[in-house]
Amino acid sequence: MDGENNISNAGRAEVLVQALPYIKRYAGCTIVVKYGGNAMINDGLKHQVMQDVVLLNAIGIKVVLVHGGGPEISQMLTRVGKKSEFLDGLRVTDGESMEIVEMVLAGKVNKSLVGLLEHYGGRAVGISGMDAGLIEADFKDRKYGYVGKVVSVNPVIIRDLLEKGYIPVVSTIGFNKNGEIFNINADTATAYIAGSLGADRMIMMTDVPGILKDKDDRGTLIQELTVEQAGELKEKGIISQGMIPKVECCVTAIGAGVQNVVIMDGTIPHSILMELLTDEGAGTLIRKGTV
Amino acid sequence: MDGENNISNAGRAEVLVQALPYIKRYAGCTIVVKYGGNAMINDGLKHQVMQDVVLLNAIGIKVVLVHGGGPEISQMLTRVGKKSEFLDGLRVTDGESMEIVEMVLAGKVNKSLVGLLEHYGGRAVGISGMDAGLIEADFKDRKYGYVGKVVSVNPVIIRDLLEKGYIPVVSTIGFNKNGEIFNINADTATAYIAGSLGADRMIMMTDVPGILKDKDDRGTLIQELTVEQAGELKEKGIISQGMIPKVECCVTAIGAGVQNVVIMDGTIPHSILMELLTDEGAGTLIRKGTV
Amino acid sequence: MDGENNISNAGRAEVLVQALPYIKRYAGCTIVVKYGGNAMINDGLKHQVMQDVVLLNAIGIKVVLVHGGGPEISQMLTRVGKKSEFLDGLRVTDGESMEIVEMVLAGKVNKSLVGLLEHYGGRAVGISGMDAGLIEADFKDRKYGYVGKVVSVNPVIIRDLLEKGYIPVVSTIGFNKNGEIFNINADTATAYIAGSLGADRMIMMTDVPGILKDKDDRGTLIQELTVEQAGELKEKGIISQGMIPKVECCVTAIGAGVQNVVIMDGTIPHSILMELLTDEGAGTLIRKGTV
Amino acid sequence: MDGENNISNAGRAEVLVQALPYIKRYAGCTIVVKYGGNAMINDGLKHQVMQDVVLLNAIGIKVVLVHGGGPEISQMLTRVGKKSEFLDGLRVTDGESMEIVEMVLAGKVNKSLVGLLEHYGGRAVGISGMDAGLIEADFKDRKYGYVGKVVSVNPVIIRDLLEKGYIPVVSTIGFNKNGEIFNINADTATAYIAGSLGADRMIMMTDVPGILKDKDDRGTLIQELTVEQAGELKEKGIISQGMIPKVECCVTAIGAGVQNVVIMDGTIPHSILMELLTDEGAGTLIRKGTV
Amino acid sequence: MDGENNISNAGRAEVLVQALPYIKRYAGCTIVVKYGGNAMINDGLKHQVMQDVVLLNAIGIKVVLVHGGGPEISQMLTRVGKKSEFLDGLRVTDGESMEIVEMVLAGKVNKSLVGLLEHYGGRAVGISGMDAGLIEADFKDRKYGYVGKVVSVNPVIIRDLLEKGYIPVVSTIGFNKNGEIFNINADTATAYIAGSLGADRMIMMTDVPGILKDKDDRGTLIQELTVEQAGELKEKGIISQGMIPKVECCVTAIGAGVQNVVIMDGTIPHSILMELLTDEGAGTLIRKGTV
Amino acid sequence: MDGENNISNAGRAEVLVQALPYIKRYAGCTIVVKYGGNAMINDGLKHQVMQDVVLLNAIGIKVVLVHGGGPEISQMLTRVGKKSEFLDGLRVTDGESMEIVEMVLAGKVNKSLVGLLEHYGGRAVGISGMDAGLIEADFKDRKYGYVGKVVSVNPVIIRDLLEKGYIPVVSTIGFNKNGEIFNINADTATAYIAGSLGADRMIMMTDVPGILKDKDDRGTLIQELTVEQAGELKEKGIISQGMIPKVECCVTAIGAGVQNVVIMDGTIPHSILMELLTDEGAGTLIRKGTV
Repeated sequence: MDGENNISNAGRAEVLVQALPYIKRYAGCTIVVKYGGNAMINDGLKHQVMQDVVLLNAIGIKVVLVHGGGPEISQMLTRVGKKSEFLDGLRVTDGESMEIVEMVLAGKVNKSLVGLLEHYGGRAVGISGMDAGLIEADFKDRKYGYVGKVVSVNPVIIRDLLEKGYIPVVSTIGFNKNGEIFNINADTATAYIAGSLGADRMIMMTDVPGILKDKDDRGTLIQELTVEQAGELKEKGIISQGMIPKVECCVTAIGAGVQNVVIMDGTIPHSILMELLTDEGAGTLIRKGTV
Repeated sequence: MDGENNISNAGRAEVLVQALPYIKRYAGCTIVVKYGGNAMINDGLKHQVMQDVVLLNAIGIKVVLVHGGGPEISQMLTRVGKKSEFLDGLRVTDGESMEIVEMVLAGKVNKSLVGLLEHYGGRAVGISGMDAGLIEADFKDRKYGYVGKVVSVNPVIIRDLLEKGYIPVVSTIGFNKNGEIFNINADTATAYIAGSLGADRMIMMTDVPGILKDKDDRGTLIQELTVEQAGELKEKGIISQGMIPKVECCVTAIGAGVQNVVIMDGTIPHSILMELLTDEGAGTLIRKGTV
Repeated sequence: MDGENNISNAGRAEVLVQALPYIKRYAGCTIVVKYGGNAMINDGLKHQVMQDVVLLNAIGIKVVLVHGGGPEISQMLTRVGKKSEFLDGLRVTDGESMEIVEMVLAGKVNKSLVGLLEHYGGRAVGISGMDAGLIEADFKDRKYGYVGKVVSVNPVIIRDLLEKGYIPVVSTIGFNKNGEIFNINADTATAYIAGSLGADRMIMMTDVPGILKDKDDRGTLIQELTVEQAGELKEKGIISQGMIPKVECCVTAIGAGVQNVVIMDGTIPHSILMELLTDEGAGTLIRKGTV
Repeated sequence: MDGENNISNAGRAEVLVQALPYIKRYAGCTIVVKYGGNAMINDGLKHQVMQDVVLLNAIGIKVVLVHGGGPEISQMLTRVGKKSEFLDGLRVTDGESMEIVEMVLAGKVNKSLVGLLEHYGGRAVGISGMDAGLIEADFKDRKYGYVGKVVSVNPVIIRDLLEKGYIPVVSTIGFNKNGEIFNINADTATAYIAGSLGADRMIMMTDVPGILKDKDDRGTLIQELTVEQAGELKEKGIISQGMIPKVECCVTAIGAGVQNVVIMDGTIPHSILMELLTDEGAGTLIRKGTV
Repeated sequence: MDGENNISNAGRAEVLVQALPYIKRYAGCTIVVKYGGNAMINDGLKHQVMQDVVLLNAIGIKVVLVHGGGPEISQMLTRVGKKSEFLDGLRVTDGESMEIVEMVLAGKVNKSLVGLLEHYGGRAVGISGMDAGLIEADFKDRKYGYVGKVVSVNPVIIRDLLEKGYIPVVSTIGFNKNGEIFNINADTATAYIAGSLGADRMIMMTDVPGILKDKDDRGTLIQELTVEQAGELKEKGIISQGMIPKVECCVTAIGAGVQNVVIMDGTIPHSILMELLTDEGAGTLIRKGTV
Repeated sequence: MDGENNISNAGRAEVLVQALPYIKRYAGCTIVVKYGGNAMINDGLKHQVMQDVVLLNAIGIKVVLVHGGGPEISQMLTRVGKKSEFLDGLRVTDGESMEIVEMVLAGKVNKSLVGLLEHYGGRAVGISGMDAGLIEADFKDRKYGYVGKVVSVNPVIIRDLLEKGYIPVVSTIGFNKNGEIFNINADTATAYIAGSLGADRMIMMTDVPGILKDKDDRGTLIQELTVEQAGELKEKGIISQGMIPKVECCVTAIGAGVQNVVIMDGTIPHSILMELLTDEGAGTLIRKGTV
């Protein structure tokens, strides 16, 4: 930001005024942010994302922050001497590991985000999918252990917190009717939560710029596409590998009632603000499609 | 603003984030702005002030805009062939002139401001001191004709409009129990209105930078002073001429319950935003004084 | 009223009691009154209409007063030396004239009505079609200048004012998305406003008793008819000349959701009260038609 | 009313308008009416009082109707063959008689008033001092049997009913902590209820015009006096006999927070309306006194 | 209860905990209880039913108590020397008898229940079908005199009382548009009231255990049946005699929107609590039938 | 409970009815429970405490559950190979240990309690002292590391959750303005939280019956004492050792506005219910003292 630090106050005022139309467009909207990837590992980026969230909240947007915590889980499992086995790309999670997962997500990562949001002036409340029965989950397949699938989402607690002006921060664990606790993929959980809230927008933070026509060329970013077009791109192999499940979550969310979804690069400083409050946006926006 | 137009989106995001602490500080506050002077004559400035007001409203500040309309009144009086006589610096206002004053203020100036605020996305409602009994007035002295003094202010209609999210725009005419209508000095009316609302801040837009130690040197601006200090400066003659009634209005407002008052130069673009949302403020702030 | 002044208090009490069923019938109803014609020019009638409106408000009816101001506009235009040209019965309104129209309607007529309502104990708020985006208008035909047609009505500000117990007084100017201001026919505007509010009744004050079978014989007043019957009477030429646009406004209002419309003679003292609170009504009532 | 039946509709409208200032004065006020005496025995008067109460309710006054029922109690006691013994002017009330009192007051008189109020369009709810613990009572002196004194009043149920727009009709029985039921003097109960509500006015319907300087000359009615002056009149013997306990109730009510009390002649048709809604009032008004 | 009095506090706590699932199931539900028969004559049972009602209210259930009063009516009629003639099993009710009926139901029985509910800590309000126009009734057949049928039920007053936390106690008299008052069968009235409230459950207290396959063998109790099955049992003569109108009321109530109805033996102590808050229920439950 | 399992339904109903006065006494009250000790280690007791809490919530009591987690913290520290050093009886907590403390308290213990409460039908939300800025803390003394003292409590989030019917479950970590996180003694935190809420009662679960005159004889339990008497007992050495800080917390809480505090034995099944809903209570109650 060095180059910008000498912006005059007049310039600053001008920037604020230019943000006005965007502020008015999103006022009162509900935006669910999936926070993860490098934006969560890099400390500077972490602070910037939290500032962005507090700012959105301050200008009247209802923001929900959903997070995972893969790297911190691995680190803690290693520390207590648990070795993780992977099957079909999923961490096979036994009871002991699940306890670690729960502690790291709901106890460490969640509270650390809450702490930062509070630091920047937000009033944040960290909850998990267990609180107020938010996420009912169940075994995806017993062979993966306590890896869960979402059975249903009851978003009343999130609505209650948003109504009172809080920023809900959600760790994606859930439980079934027997009280068994599950680790749930954060992208999936975010899609279900955004859908159950009928969110105006869901933002998926990733480590890539969005959907690229040529995945090696950032200049080939697709700025907007419909659900139908996304399907075509998948068939053509343009949407491939790690992007496939991301796009599937987006499609799920839109099917469940979210207005539109943006896949963006969380490693760019203040990418959320740039997406929402400036004239050029960021990443790839997916919407239902023309009627 | 040319020099700033090439601020990058990253720079813009940074500016927004830097405004966050100020946004949070004023959220929910009531700010009464006396709008007038050159900022009202110059069309470019007019648009900028209206943008500022809509932006403040959008980020959760309750803004009340109070306006006069001297130049437009003179112009209309001339047009209908009325000559104005002045006595003790006040326009002697006969019944026919008062009708013109009322039409210009409540019909033309008020609605033109409302129109601009709406244009920038605000929801504005223009009222006069007659609506819902806002300003009870009476003859200042019959020798001046329908020049009024404020008898009392009933701010319920302003509170009702603020509560519903509207931006109240007030023309400063009032009436007495006999239904006689009066032209009221806008500075005075603003002070009474701000006082009756217990406003957090009153902003007086003028054509000078604020209170200057040496009135010919803008570099001698006094940034902050107490009511008591203002009294001393008046005795010393540093506050003099046209600044005297302005400061008296400020002192009246503070006595009536306003937290603090800022006298600022309305001819600087976006001076309100610069005052409220950047780190250096603008103009001279007067407050009750240390206890 | 001389002959009545010697009504005993017992008689007065009896009259009040006889009004009870009517008071109960209209309690909580929304009634939109188009105020104009001779009832607006004659000062005595003006006071009486305002008393009626305040009384209706006091007994729990939600009254909206919509006004034009033809004669006062002409007078002011003359005063500033503008000559009006008429085309198809419409005043061709250039920009300079529009400014006068706006000042007269929103600044003079509107505030004078507000003042009278306040005098009789009402809490009135005068707004124009520009306030809170009430009336979006546009050119009827550019050959008429700033003569507007209604594009849409957003009645939220009226609902907000009614909810708080105020009497909204509306001047019928509107604006388009470019901020151009238009003079709108008051009958038409009233119909649109009443329709958008889903009013229980719209009252059109005119200078005639209502729809007459023989326009020269007040004894041939039609007390009630359906929209369909109105159409037939128009075909037969019984509804003719100046009554045609009035009836069209009524039909528009009913089509937009108003329960029924009354065309009445505003030159009869307290005709609104007589219509609503006594056993014989006044004027011609138009309703949707038998089902 | 014969002479008035030929009041023209114009005259009727005029009467309504003249009531406007009174309607506005009492809007939102709480008025507690002690209903009894001949106004309750005479069927025509009964209907008129009920009309008055419904009208007051319709124009936004919160009316509470408190009633006794002496004559109907005597009649029923006779019918079941109970002879009443009187001691110090009080009916000695054994358990069997109390049961009759309760049935007549809460079952017959109360519901008959409710029925009439509903007939005239009011929404009335008849309760007794037992409902929702309204009146806690106890033995005045065991020698009188179940003649009760008021221990405390809990007016929450009355407030709840008024808030929802109902007309509460109260029979003056109460009970103690042992569940024993008592007959309570209606004047006394009214004073306590009005006091606990902080009523704006209490109206005592009697069979006399008010307080007379010469009790045989209706022309000597005292229109207004202070509590202090009432004390002096009692000392002088001008307030005497049956008027003494009435005035004591008034003084009690004022002491407990009622703004003022009117003792009026309930045998004059629509005396309540005449008192509240016309220019000459009725009866004697007692208020706290000048300070 | 002697045998139980030595339950330890630990045992008591255990019982409370075991009631938890039932408490949660009925929280916020509306339950209408028809109270009558021996449970109303026997003083001990009366106290127990009132305790049950207060307890249900205390744990968040909205209870409405509807009562008749046959035996007390007969007793009072005898006392005033009226002989009752019966026709088709109905008491022919002349005007004089109706007055007694009204006094006994609304004045004596109603208030005695209110008194007991208050004694056990409830806040009860006794109303009749006349209050707030609750029950519009009319002649069943003029040959029976003032025996009424229900024309319509307006349950707003009951909803208003429930919303404020009161326990409404209803005597089943009603009136027609002429103000004539009628005695209404309490079972029928309860069914209409429960239906108009869309109650979750209606409980009919009777002197028998419920519907028995063999009416002489309590061991043949049918615990649950559908409306359709009830029809079949009537055809087969298993539902016979006095049980026929009871079941018809139940079917009426279910048709009008009540979830289910329980016919239970009111002579068993605390039968309501046993039905609602323990694991075995009581009596016969009738529900709409499988879909 | 074996001996009780054969309680008849009649007996169960009787028990429920006997709890009625206690239910009514505590309805709407706020009760803060410090949960810990053996009642938290023993799995059977844990389930019973959670049932008790859900039952209290179900009958309208606002319950806040505050917990520590000493044993689980030690276990986890051991598991990751951290050795705890103790100083003045406090665990010296370095940054790495604090991270473990946070994870165990906010991630494991908190969510496990939330899960059980949900299992029994409650709607619980687990928060920490960091959420919504609940607990501001700071170093007790740097020599103990991140052992915190309470600087202030902002209970708004707890009030918001209670208002919506949730059961707040609080882990006692807090943070200072620099974002440093602290482990706070749960007894102390409970006292501050209860005080800031102005709770009606605070319940301290311990492993002893309460305050005993002779600590080796459970028969010498003191059932009730004032703050003053507690001071005397401390001076006499009757309150000694581990009971001293407990009693100090109680005194702190009462000083901060809690009505009264109960120290009870959490190892007795359903001790909370026995304390609140039966006639003999449990443990020692401390209150402000006679006035």
